Amino acid sequence: MRYELYYQPSIQGRGEFVRLPLEDAGADYVDVARDPNVGRPGVMKFIEDPSLEHPPFAPPFLKAGKLLISQTANILQFLGPRLDLVAGDQASRLWAHQLQLTIADWLHEAHDTHHPLGNVFYYEEQSAEAKRRAAVFITHRMPKFLGYFERILKRNTSESGFIFGAPVSYVDLSLFQMIEGLRYAFPRTMARLETQSPRLIALHARVKARPRIAAYLSSARRLPFNQQGIFRHYPELEED
Amino acid sequence: MRYELYYQPSIQGRGEFVRLPLEDAGADYVDVARDPNVGRPGVMKFIEDPSLEHPPFAPPFLKAGKLLISQTANILQFLGPRLDLVAGDQASRLWAHQLQLTIADWLHEAHDTHHPLGNVFYYEEQSAEAKRRAAVFITHRMPKFLGYFERILKRNTSESGFIFGAPVSYVDLSLFQMIEGLRYAFPRTMARLETQSPRLIALHARVKARPRIAAYLSSARRLPFNQQGIFRHYPELEED
Repeated sequence: MRYELYYQPSIQGRGEFVRLPLEDAGADYVDVARDPNVGRPGVMKFIEDPSLEHPPFAPPFLKAGKLLISQTANILQFLGPRLDLVAGDQASRLWAHQLQLTIADWLHEAHDTHHPLGNVFYYEEQSAEAKRRAAVFITHRMPKFLGYFERILKRNTSESGFIFGAPVSYVDLSLFQMIEGLRYAFPRTMARLETQSPRLIALHARVKARPRIAAYLSSARRLPFNQQGIFRHYPELEED
Repeated sequence: MRYELYYQPSIQGRGEFVRLPLEDAGADYVDVARDPNVGRPGVMKFIEDPSLEHPPFAPPFLKAGKLLISQTANILQFLGPRLDLVAGDQASRLWAHQLQLTIADWLHEAHDTHHPLGNVFYYEEQSAEAKRRAAVFITHRMPKFLGYFERILKRNTSESGFIFGAPVSYVDLSLFQMIEGLRYAFPRTMARLETQSPRLIALHARVKARPRIAAYLSSARRLPFNQQGIFRHYPELEED
């Protein structure tokens, strides 16, 4: 089956959490909005089609045959078993999804560091508020989330270093992306915190070295981080 | 099976989205933290137990036999089929979960109207930021979310007035709770917007009249809204 991913054409954003498993599995997929004739307008037009039975609230969404699925964690839950990126038993699937939703909360908070008042205002119109919000994120929330996932990896006594032992799961791929994004957005903070999260950092390296992921990261398909995405680098947010 | 719900003992909060389906289904459950010997400290102590195989990041979480499940939408997805609150086919389950995750985003935004900088600061320490954020929520986001669900109900040509036609689903129960909460938090805004959402308001009334829900709402088990929960009423946030 050829999967169709609909997202924004110029940022990693939430779409990246779907691109990574598709790439790691070598799945047949098309990133629809990257076609210059489609772009973001084409994706938004698709959403507003009144004949859609299950209209998404917002991108990303995935077309898989007749199914149209939105909400990142929902898409991953759907793709997981199909791409062999999650174990088959119910307890594992619930656990993977629970972790993915916790990652979604973490990502939400990372976004809110630069847009605490919402996307209606430019960053420049809320930079003072962003500064206060980022301080909380750096001081309290980043250590809490990093510590949580480190603790879970510690409880996994297997040598594989992935969340489920082995093989890799879509949750591992999302954790890789979180570390990537946080290093881009908060390099000074990450330099300080990474020593306390050795297992998570090793997981990141392990994912990065996977052949298909490595090929993807060095391809033109991997968009660079930039100041329009969810992870943005405003140096002033890390300054005391 | 007796379900054990772990949440906070004094607010509706996210736990209410789990209590409602358990009540509507007449399920056997215990709201663990309501036991004065447990309370919030008991729930937090439970989370920190190092022997837990699948530790939650935060409440609410549900114990169902050997399973321990957290993240509200994940709990509902698990309970849905067991309580006959979602159809059995894959497309319906994906759709219900997608809508539930959209409700979770909406709830998150409702919370952020009074705590845009996070929970580390009191409301009084971020009331100016809250005012700006609430204005965006009232002007842009509430109409967008209400309009989205109204549109979906409109596409459902059945007379039942529920999201899936009939019978009721856990998504309908959550939509009831959103309307309840928004009426409490933003009464002036809802008075203005409700006329544009007749189907959603009718759904709310239909859920409220269900015998077990009506009994629950008039019982001591239903906690009142208050200024510690997710939905809070600060009249100044609605003023021009």
